Amino acid sequence: MSRATPHHDDCSVTKALDIIGDWWALLILRNAFHGMRTFDALQKQLGISTSVLSSRLKTMTEAGVLQKVVSKADGRSFEYRLTASGHDLYPVLVALMQWGEKWRPSAKGQRLMLIEKASGLPVQGVAVLAADGRPLKPWDVAPVPGPGADERVRELIGPH
Amino acid sequence: MSRATPHHDDCSVTKALDIIGDWWALLILRNAFHGMRTFDALQKQLGISTSVLSSRLKTMTEAGVLQKVVSKADGRSFEYRLTASGHDLYPVLVALMQWGEKWRPSAKGQRLMLIEKASGLPVQGVAVLAADGRPLKPWDVAPVPGPGADERVRELIGPH
Repeated sequence: MSRATPHHDDCSVTKALDIIGDWWALLILRNAFHGMRTFDALQKQLGISTSVLSSRLKTMTEAGVLQKVVSKADGRSFEYRLTASGHDLYPVLVALMQWGEKWRPSAKGQRLMLIEKASGLPVQGVAVLAADGRPLKPWDVAPVPGPGADERVRELIGPH
Repeated sequence: MSRATPHHDDCSVTKALDIIGDWWALLILRNAFHGMRTFDALQKQLGISTSVLSSRLKTMTEAGVLQKVVSKADGRSFEYRLTASGHDLYPVLVALMQWGEKWRPSAKGQRLMLIEKASGLPVQGVAVLAADGRPLKPWDVAPVPGPGADERVRELIGPH
């Protein structure tokens, strides 16, 4: 997606947002993780215009997050499937879901539970992990510029 | 943020995206996690218009993700601080960063490293965890409707 950003950071978050930093893109991804693969099914569930859906699918396909493939079902229609890089966005979606369930709960209880197929047990959720696997909070962590940090990334990190 | 969505899901992801499903909101959050707290600093670093920045800060403050407080430094200006619910969005940001570093790396190497303050060791990253703490992939997990799932959430889950 093109943005009228005068200072476009060479920042890893910005790089991800170039592709999915958008309400619709994130909902398309959500649906893709639920196994929804066709243009028609996405359009119907999301109530999105043809042009916006086409544009978002094009951006995500060109970025390699989705792959457009011929449907196995009929050999003529197309499906949008998550690629390896698309699958790596799973923690983003689960983190959003976890936040929504905690901070915007439904009065009727949990809307959606994620169950590990192998064990049948509920998934614990998403966490930022220390080297030894302990969950960390934001204040436990400090950002340090790496060899790829430019002046703007250094400015971003602070100290402020 | 208001959206022209004909079918507005009562979905936990949508609830989170109502507040942060937006390029600028996510960059403001990124900067907040780096300790950037003032309107002027945010505007300068992001190169964002006054009206867009005001609007996003208002949305996030009203949603309780940020809190507008009088600055301790001079007692007159204001700061935007992450609240408890804002801090809970940390995994979303780290997941985006992790994806960007992996799939859109800089030729010069890692841009930003997250270090655990206590141990001095690099953070492992974000993962979706099983009940016993093992990291899970999307295909290890199945969504199951909970008591709060309405018809549209059930439709979303599938089977498709």
